[in-house]
Amino acid sequence: MFKDNDFIYIDYVAKIKDTGEVIDTTIEEEAKKANVYNTEQKYKPLLVILGEHRVIPGLEEALYNLNENEEKEFEIQPEKAYGNRDPSKVKIVSLSELKRQGINPRPNMIVRVEGGGYATIRSVTGGRVVLDLNHPYAGRTLMYKVKVVKVLKEPKEKVDALIERWFKENKLNTEILQDSKNVKITIPKDYFLVDGIEIVKYNLARDILTYVLPGFTLTYTEVFNEDTFKR
Amino acid sequence: MFKDNDFIYIDYVAKIKDTGEVIDTTIEEEAKKANVYNTEQKYKPLLVILGEHRVIPGLEEALYNLNENEEKEFEIQPEKAYGNRDPSKVKIVSLSELKRQGINPRPNMIVRVEGGGYATIRSVTGGRVVLDLNHPYAGRTLMYKVKVVKVLKEPKEKVDALIERWFKENKLNTEILQDSKNVKITIPKDYFLVDGIEIVKYNLARDILTYVLPGFTLTYTEVFNEDTFKR
Repeated sequence: MFKDNDFIYIDYVAKIKDTGEVIDTTIEEEAKKANVYNTEQKYKPLLVILGEHRVIPGLEEALYNLNENEEKEFEIQPEKAYGNRDPSKVKIVSLSELKRQGINPRPNMIVRVEGGGYATIRSVTGGRVVLDLNHPYAGRTLMYKVKVVKVLKEPKEKVDALIERWFKENKLNTEILQDSKNVKITIPKDYFLVDGIEIVKYNLARDILTYVLPGFTLTYTEVFNEDTFKR
Repeated sequence: MFKDNDFIYIDYVAKIKDTGEVIDTTIEEEAKKANVYNTEQKYKPLLVILGEHRVIPGLEEALYNLNENEEKEFEIQPEKAYGNRDPSKVKIVSLSELKRQGINPRPNMIVRVEGGGYATIRSVTGGRVVLDLNHPYAGRTLMYKVKVVKVLKEPKEKVDALIERWFKENKLNTEILQDSKNVKITIPKDYFLVDGIEIVKYNLARDILTYVLPGFTLTYTEVFNEDTFKR
């Protein structure tokens, strides 16, 4: 049993219930077995902070009832996954219009349409194409097979997990001073000129102060000297 | 008499010697008098760090020989200003080509040409246009009337002047610890999400450690707490 603000790592395989199609997994072997392996993706357990709402509601709710090392398979209804289907989001457009946009539509293809985000091609009949602007998994009941592989207990572990989330690596030096309610993070010079680093630092500070050390003061320090400017 | 790394503020009026045309000034009244007043510009004395080479060589060299509150007028030859004219940078193009680029050329107009930066229109004769890609002030002898209005002595004043240069205002908290050779700068939360702030901080640190406090260690601190995230 978990509670709000618990930090857990999960491995999972998510499928469409009707078809058995694997739509997402954290496990490389499962991705290969299902022929959905993506070389761009890093297969590793996913950090979930309970109550953060970064995963679909049905998954998050189910996680509260698991325990460390427990594995479970459960069904998630569309309203707790990607929503129900909205029939008004299904539109008929002309084949020539799509071709003008550089799209040569075939059934089940997912395409990016002008001004409308992503759409699924449902059918192509003569000059008429049925476009579905619903989320590809809207209306689908999902099957999640989930295992809680790790539970983080110590504030230091949780801070490191958040650094990994935002920086994609951990080269920061972190010190947690429980007595004075301070957390001190040193940013190394490699990051001084990284474009967008201010947003990464802001997000990390927000997550640490919200989920790990509420009431604390977080201080970033960046140390420059003559060597900083040498190539 | 000044030396390298001295911080001075100057007021000046710069003219083309031949024509008397005012090309630049730090003094609002002079700009208005010469009909070159620009509402976008902030008229105020310019910070010059001797040896930094951010102003034209002839001006910087002359400044070394002035004293505080001294005012002097001197001539600067083209090679110590915007360089000599390069005749190969004068080109003849067709009027129709410029019109295709949306330019309706008239003599003395400064235009931005495709792939070539700025150019001055020298003449328009029939269908032929003479374009000059030299700097508008190349080959011109300049007259500078300069006054050293302020000389900074204390490291704190110099650091503040550099903060003003890079941040355009001074909301930072700065502490210089001479004994331990440390300078500590606190960045307030207003700047945490400013796009490009990492470059501003980098440039400020580089200038302080180069021109004011060589051999020191500079530390930026940014303090976050729950209030940081309130709107």
